[in-house]
Amino acid sequence: MTGDAGAEPVVHFYFDFISPFGYLASLRIDELAARHGYRTQWHSFLTGVTIMKVMGLPPVPKTPLKSAYAQRDARRYCRRHGIELGRAFGQEPANPLPAGRIFHWLRAHRPDTAKPVARNLFHAYWIEDRDIGDLDVALGCAQAGGADIADLRAALDDGSAAALLREATDDAVAKGVFGSPFFRVGDEPFFGVEKMELLEEWLQQGPW
Amino acid sequence: MTGDAGAEPVVHFYFDFISPFGYLASLRIDELAARHGYRTQWHSFLTGVTIMKVMGLPPVPKTPLKSAYAQRDARRYCRRHGIELGRAFGQEPANPLPAGRIFHWLRAHRPDTAKPVARNLFHAYWIEDRDIGDLDVALGCAQAGGADIADLRAALDDGSAAALLREATDDAVAKGVFGSPFFRVGDEPFFGVEKMELLEEWLQQGPW
Repeated sequence: MTGDAGAEPVVHFYFDFISPFGYLASLRIDELAARHGYRTQWHSFLTGVTIMKVMGLPPVPKTPLKSAYAQRDARRYCRRHGIELGRAFGQEPANPLPAGRIFHWLRAHRPDTAKPVARNLFHAYWIEDRDIGDLDVALGCAQAGGADIADLRAALDDGSAAALLREATDDAVAKGVFGSPFFRVGDEPFFGVEKMELLEEWLQQGPW
Repeated sequence: MTGDAGAEPVVHFYFDFISPFGYLASLRIDELAARHGYRTQWHSFLTGVTIMKVMGLPPVPKTPLKSAYAQRDARRYCRRHGIELGRAFGQEPANPLPAGRIFHWLRAHRPDTAKPVARNLFHAYWIEDRDIGDLDVALGCAQAGGADIADLRAALDDGSAAALLREATDDAVAKGVFGSPFFRVGDEPFFGVEKMELLEEWLQQGPW
């Protein structure tokens, strides 16, 4: 089966670097899509905009009941999948702007490096517990992924990388994206890591 | 496998009668649990308390982005499972108090009728599009499920049914329950209809 479920065989994957479930989804989505002849397009966005500004909600770690549940659910997921996060829950999140800006500038201008760099950023934050909100840490992840640091510094300084992240977040909202991870096949939306099995059914048997 | 995942082989199923995904879960949960040697204990509660008062959030139908997603997700679920809801989304919900009070009074005093009556209430609301917030409609569902209407009227009049629903909702909050459906095996929580596959894995292979 290849691509029958959407206009083109692409799974759009939306995530925030500071979202634990976004990271966990990033470890599976490409392989899941490839099994059914789909490629993936990755989009970082800011849950600080979608959840807090557009939806008017507090972030999950500050939501009574849901906060404790989400932490427990993430730990259970990690045990099931044999993943050991290096970052403890309950800490203040990093500033997500450097990572998101770097990712979107690379996606626009050095597309072959965008996904490796995104993986480095995710890994640095969730496994190595490094502060990817620190520009030098984020640029180090970029460099290790093959990006040219001088180009990136210029794009971060002149605001063009920031503009790309803003546009990407606006576009995510326009497509109905709110939380991380979020997946889209054509205009069919799937929210949450627990929808990945349904997403796979959709790729294989959908649309229904 | 019978009962290894919890202190006793019981799946606790929490729902609000006015929650579409609560209804959809009610159609599967008993069979799912029975496949693994578990019985179910049903608990109705009020999402108006957990979501709005305890969590401080708006109800899903009034949450930007999530409202449209949840409707679409419910329709997709229904198509996949061959269910045709009689009630259109986007309407004002019924008053959930009569159904919840009736259910909890029956559970406490006529336990053999509680689940059949709950199924009647769910069916009346979600398939027949009847107003179960209307006391006569709700009592009709109770009567059709084998309950004695005179007993129920007395318990509704003297406040004892209302007290049971309040206690049940407080107990749900104390157990970390926030949305509908919610499942609990021992102290292991599962939120949402999309967690039913994971719940089944847990019954079969858990705890992990």
